[in-house]
Amino acid sequence: MNTLPEWLRQLRFDEHGLIPAIAQDAHDGTVLMVAWMNAESLAETAGTGYAVYWSRSRSRLWRKGEESGHRQRVREIRLDCDGDVLLLKVEQEGGIACHTGRRSCFFQRLETGERPGWVNVDPVLKDPEHIYK
Amino acid sequence: MNTLPEWLRQLRFDEHGLIPAIAQDAHDGTVLMVAWMNAESLAETAGTGYAVYWSRSRSRLWRKGEESGHRQRVREIRLDCDGDVLLLKVEQEGGIACHTGRRSCFFQRLETGERPGWVNVDPVLKDPEHIYK
Repeated sequence: MNTLPEWLRQLRFDEHGLIPAIAQDAHDGTVLMVAWMNAESLAETAGTGYAVYWSRSRSRLWRKGEESGHRQRVREIRLDCDGDVLLLKVEQEGGIACHTGRRSCFFQRLETGERPGWVNVDPVLKDPEHIYK
Repeated sequence: MNTLPEWLRQLRFDEHGLIPAIAQDAHDGTVLMVAWMNAESLAETAGTGYAVYWSRSRSRLWRKGEESGHRQRVREIRLDCDGDVLLLKVEQEGGIACHTGRRSCFFQRLETGERPGWVNVDPVLKDPEHIYK
């Protein structure tokens, strides 16, 4: 790991070499999704200007939009005070970040009251069957 | 854990019983911080309307603002499609979420170019010595 450039060595990756990254719409601030990055994916993100994550389920680089076409153009990368969370301000191509066909992955809202529960409050913009064909 | 209400059992806590929570300014969408919650802290958050986290370093509930006075009034709680990240839309009392005295913990921006590096781009609004007295 000594070969990593200084700006990458300053990050506090977890025991798996990963760091969570929040993707936020650069224009209106909507939080779109949270995914994971390793040093390689972050270096590629910074180099290409498009978000690249690390897929934990597939154990490989995940170039966001590689299947769906919903790439994320990265306008700004920020790091928090502890150095263990990234924030990417992105332009979401296609306007859809979530694999469910919604704009944001955070479409479940907690309704409190007598019977609290999670309610889907955001519309499906595109049928996932037509996104991943 | 069977005694947990259904809406809490739907969450995918990690092996330590924790789930990350993003706090976002309810008014302008600024991402303020990321912290951890367990079931108890989330239940108290939902019940009281003020953000309560789980402090991993102190291994106890962390009622945000208990020392600094910078409490977070929670306006909305959202859950992502995987059920493993929370998003809290909050009103940040005092306008400062970060222990460094800045509004947001995400004050370091990656400057690319020949010598990439993290640069502090947001001002300290209040000296931490005066926040934690």
